[in-house]
Amino acid sequence: MNLANRNLVTIDDLSNGEIEALFSLADEMANSPNEQSGLCQGKIMASLFFEPSTRTRLSFEAGMLRLGGRVISAVDIGASSLAKGESIADMAKVLGSYADIIVIRHPWEGAARVVADYAGVPVINAGDGSHEHPTQTLCDFYTIRKERQTVKGLRIALWGDLKHGRTVHSLIYALARFGATILFCPGPGLEMPEHVLRRLSTEYKGELQRCRDLNQEPERRLFPIDAIYMTPSSPHQLAMLPDISIRVELKAGVDALYVTRLQKERQAPTVEEQELKKGYPVVDKKLLKGKEFKKTLVMHPLPRVDELTHELDADPRSMYFKQAAYGMPVRMALLALLLGAKEVTIPEEEDSFVRKIDYPVYKRDSGVKCPNRNCVSNQETEVRYIKPEFKIVSREPLTLRCVYCDHELHPRYVASSEWHQRKLESKKYHSADSHFAWKINPENLIIFASEKEAQAQQFKPSSYARQ
Amino acid sequence: MNLANRNLVTIDDLSNGEIEALFSLADEMANSPNEQSGLCQGKIMASLFFEPSTRTRLSFEAGMLRLGGRVISAVDIGASSLAKGESIADMAKVLGSYADIIVIRHPWEGAARVVADYAGVPVINAGDGSHEHPTQTLCDFYTIRKERQTVKGLRIALWGDLKHGRTVHSLIYALARFGATILFCPGPGLEMPEHVLRRLSTEYKGELQRCRDLNQEPERRLFPIDAIYMTPSSPHQLAMLPDISIRVELKAGVDALYVTRLQKERQAPTVEEQELKKGYPVVDKKLLKGKEFKKTLVMHPLPRVDELTHELDADPRSMYFKQAAYGMPVRMALLALLLGAKEVTIPEEEDSFVRKIDYPVYKRDSGVKCPNRNCVSNQETEVRYIKPEFKIVSREPLTLRCVYCDHELHPRYVASSEWHQRKLESKKYHSADSHFAWKINPENLIIFASEKEAQAQQFKPSSYARQ
Amino acid sequence: MNLANRNLVTIDDLSNGEIEALFSLADEMANSPNEQSGLCQGKIMASLFFEPSTRTRLSFEAGMLRLGGRVISAVDIGASSLAKGESIADMAKVLGSYADIIVIRHPWEGAARVVADYAGVPVINAGDGSHEHPTQTLCDFYTIRKERQTVKGLRIALWGDLKHGRTVHSLIYALARFGATILFCPGPGLEMPEHVLRRLSTEYKGELQRCRDLNQEPERRLFPIDAIYMTPSSPHQLAMLPDISIRVELKAGVDALYVTRLQKERQAPTVEEQELKKGYPVVDKKLLKGKEFKKTLVMHPLPRVDELTHELDADPRSMYFKQAAYGMPVRMALLALLLGAKEVTIPEEEDSFVRKIDYPVYKRDSGVKCPNRNCVSNQETEVRYIKPEFKIVSREPLTLRCVYCDHELHPRYVASSEWHQRKLESKKYHSADSHFAWKINPENLIIFASEKEAQAQQFKPSSYARQ
Repeated sequence: MNLANRNLVTIDDLSNGEIEALFSLADEMANSPNEQSGLCQGKIMASLFFEPSTRTRLSFEAGMLRLGGRVISAVDIGASSLAKGESIADMAKVLGSYADIIVIRHPWEGAARVVADYAGVPVINAGDGSHEHPTQTLCDFYTIRKERQTVKGLRIALWGDLKHGRTVHSLIYALARFGATILFCPGPGLEMPEHVLRRLSTEYKGELQRCRDLNQEPERRLFPIDAIYMTPSSPHQLAMLPDISIRVELKAGVDALYVTRLQKERQAPTVEEQELKKGYPVVDKKLLKGKEFKKTLVMHPLPRVDELTHELDADPRSMYFKQAAYGMPVRMALLALLLGAKEVTIPEEEDSFVRKIDYPVYKRDSGVKCPNRNCVSNQETEVRYIKPEFKIVSREPLTLRCVYCDHELHPRYVASSEWHQRKLESKKYHSADSHFAWKINPENLIIFASEKEAQAQQFKPSSYARQ
Repeated sequence: MNLANRNLVTIDDLSNGEIEALFSLADEMANSPNEQSGLCQGKIMASLFFEPSTRTRLSFEAGMLRLGGRVISAVDIGASSLAKGESIADMAKVLGSYADIIVIRHPWEGAARVVADYAGVPVINAGDGSHEHPTQTLCDFYTIRKERQTVKGLRIALWGDLKHGRTVHSLIYALARFGATILFCPGPGLEMPEHVLRRLSTEYKGELQRCRDLNQEPERRLFPIDAIYMTPSSPHQLAMLPDISIRVELKAGVDALYVTRLQKERQAPTVEEQELKKGYPVVDKKLLKGKEFKKTLVMHPLPRVDELTHELDADPRSMYFKQAAYGMPVRMALLALLLGAKEVTIPEEEDSFVRKIDYPVYKRDSGVKCPNRNCVSNQETEVRYIKPEFKIVSREPLTLRCVYCDHELHPRYVASSEWHQRKLESKKYHSADSHFAWKINPENLIIFASEKEAQAQQFKPSSYARQ
Repeated sequence: MNLANRNLVTIDDLSNGEIEALFSLADEMANSPNEQSGLCQGKIMASLFFEPSTRTRLSFEAGMLRLGGRVISAVDIGASSLAKGESIADMAKVLGSYADIIVIRHPWEGAARVVADYAGVPVINAGDGSHEHPTQTLCDFYTIRKERQTVKGLRIALWGDLKHGRTVHSLIYALARFGATILFCPGPGLEMPEHVLRRLSTEYKGELQRCRDLNQEPERRLFPIDAIYMTPSSPHQLAMLPDISIRVELKAGVDALYVTRLQKERQAPTVEEQELKKGYPVVDKKLLKGKEFKKTLVMHPLPRVDELTHELDADPRSMYFKQAAYGMPVRMALLALLLGAKEVTIPEEEDSFVRKIDYPVYKRDSGVKCPNRNCVSNQETEVRYIKPEFKIVSREPLTLRCVYCDHELHPRYVASSEWHQRKLESKKYHSADSHFAWKINPENLIIFASEKEAQAQQFKPSSYARQ
């Protein structure tokens, strides 16, 4: 199979089978990195980094060069022509005419999707704000697979700043897709956002359990567990007994401990850094003496600060420098595939742990905007051509998910375009929670951010407008 | 013919025939961009950008790489060794010993000429302040030629910020050289500088007409015409009737509408940005409904902001993304030629619309300085070795044109070196406007910025000193 | 011989013979720079510049590209992931897995050594703070060798800012090693640091003489000599008569005048720049008219500011642009050697002017820290894993030299680990100047920065503690 001209904006752009195939190719690249220089000759990769990065950017560039390709790069382009007020769509179109593939990191969430929409060449997301960083996820996965052969049925603990880490958000869905059990171990105030947990429990086949109670057991202090996502891949009948199931899972040992640093740069500016740092859980030799960590892979996307001590660097369980090193073969494989320089055979069985859902799409001029200020759809330079667009992921309560940044919102008022077309008197809006509202077909749905917005568009309140 | 070791500092460094030959080569490059990788193997291009740029820099770099060459680049070098107080001449000499060709963008006007004077390898000006940006002009021209086969006799409207846009200044002389008729459509307060208009009317063979009166006709409001340069290439006898000639030209339709953005970063800091933006003319669907635009090529050097709406992007008349895309083959052709990797045949007929004038050069230690603060000849680090140098482009009134930045000045006092050499009593200075002054041979002319300057050099006022 | 996998952190990492062999290879590179493109094919150089540089960085990059290799580069990475609090050791380990060789410039003294310790691939120091810049030294040396065949016995004057110039510190030891006579001509307040002079007089075979008296002779005003290091390579018996020996040396002429600029950016912020600039000695045509300069090579590492006038650029004695140009072949040779792409024959006779001294190493948790704030061992992000480490270069007075930055310190208190192991009562500390202290074997030595530190570690003052 040929993945040429595909994008990698989110980890979901690749099926499980495609990921497996990519990893087989990465094995080839890792075995003979210096013998790949014929693969991408004459091809040019544009590496566009609107946020600083050395590791990710240089591994992409080194990878492309080892494939025989060439690189043009623009770094810290905040100060550049984009600052003159240019849209990223314009930039994407122009660079798509110079380069054969684009790698982009951008502080706006959803920016990579816009670039992919306009570039006309394959686009790889190298991080868009707090949204996704799918190639990091690939490296993380590849590391686990190299050490444990499979992700299915493994117990993987996510540790630290689960609120802001984009690597963690991409990773979690991928872990669920591949059938892992996930233990959530956040620092205080840095819990996994609700919308991530909700999505996990609706779109994947396992079960999510909150377990705050268990935290009070003294022996768990070092291990600040908060929730657990139980894979359906390993047979257990403990779903109704959360305490017990967690104990059982832990007793069996943690297969991988995925540590993240405090994402200072993404904190609200009012939060005291010292405050956050104080309570941040540290992974050190002492913690890893626990018997649940006997065979644990200690992982970290790097850069690390203080949350993972240097004393562990020589420990055979430490995987973080390997993870970084695997960045090159994994990205080489990805570049070669998207540039059509290599074909792969996709294994048969696919995505067995995902529930495939085709959500209806909502896209109208009705005043509903993504609530995420950092979303690409809310930027001054981009509103000139981007219309907000959402997936309707739930009707009860009404929940829209932004197609750019995946943030969710709960608009309060709706109307139907059907009624509107018949009689002007019936041009009315209703509470989104009303039984009436639930009956409107998705394709007829008009959604308002507020009553004011509804009225501005000449709708009047129905008897279902306030409940 | 071989263009090896030539520079491209100003568009006038290439004759019309050379430009045509370069375009033929660009056609070759455009047809098979991936088959040129043998041309510049082993050659290194240094890309030195003292001002931010992604488009221009990356198109040069991508072009050089597609030619099989290599690139070293320094971006945003304001903070670098130049900030340690180094002159650009020193930088040029050193980099000329590492690279085979240099591409430079610099905020100082005339900087590219200095680099060309010292580098010892070919130098391409990628923009020097508000002065010139000749490769942009080549891309613009190439786009017109691709769509209309020739520039000769076309009616081309320049639109927006005609005061600061360097792309526009390079473009206008080139248009005149190739025999286009030019319509000037500036935003309020952003008219083409007088010196550009004067030069156009003296050095090219067409005629310039101001046409403020016509603006009062209400149907022209959308099209803020200000002046017109009438090419001699199309026969018309309307020169004495400016109103009519403009109407005739417009009736025949506009062949290309060249839109530019407001160059905020080059405005005087006192000017209110909001004020400027308010009156800035916008090109949108509505404007382009006018029948004079039926077949108009809509062009823009990009980046655009609000002056050209996104709704036009899919319009077949929109050329701006093509213009940007042509940047690569055009620059590839240019690099290949200046590196001597390709020879071309120069067509016979040349520059027929330029009056060739050899102005005398003025270069003395007499206190005359370029009035342009942003000129390279006025910079602290450069005065150590640069002497001001001017072309005497007119004696009545006395007009000097800076050889570095093309700005003009009108010194008030002169003396003759001939008299001086004979008798000390006759060491006198005169008003530059006096009959006496006009008789001094250019090679004997001593020019003073002020009486004070003349007196400081021991000259005394003659009876012609004050008029 | 094969230099593959060696580092170049300090000029002392190469023996005299290795330097000679490298220069022979540089000759080859200089003769046919465009025929080396087979040497480093498939190899990747990472160019990591934490401080701005164009000259050094671009000469490395151009050199690597001419060798057929590829380059990934990160410039001005202050703002990048390192700002997120990452250690340079982590960065080194990761980049060592992407690149085959690393070139690093960093503002911290000793940073290049740390990178070399962790990268796992060859590392070249392209400047670490005010510490060393060994490839500049190689270029300087190569220039002298090209013009004078040998350095041995030459009289070389170092001129200007001898206090901060890292190029000068690397250069001076190299000059001494090769048997040059060195004349010190500092600007006022910019004398060579004491520790450099001390090291010169203890570790090399020549003799150092201070000669402030001579400065009062009026004819020397233009030539602000301050000290002289007399090589043992040329026979003279004047060591006891400093005045005479300097006169004799000068009479014989200066072979090379090595000018440096005022290192403004490394001055203490309290020092008035204008003050420093005023007294800074300038090298111009007038100075060079002196007959001692008749055949002098005028050298400068560039960038220059005002200390070396442009009027000398065309003078055949001026070598500074040659020096810069030689940067490419010298660095090409170095890269080819460290990457194992070339083997060389090392000449027999080696380092004859160095006294080989194996200083004992001191590395204990006893509170002794490097006094240099800018040393890598004192940085917040690095103390997590770096332990201070020193060479004991003298016992009388006790002098430690930091292995990272070469700064020296004179701790006042010591103890012996031997006594400590026997009886707790004898766990006592002593003045470092006491006879008792001198008798402690280096391997038993415990050194304290202060009495407080000693007491904090449960040592009590002995009768030798205060003298």
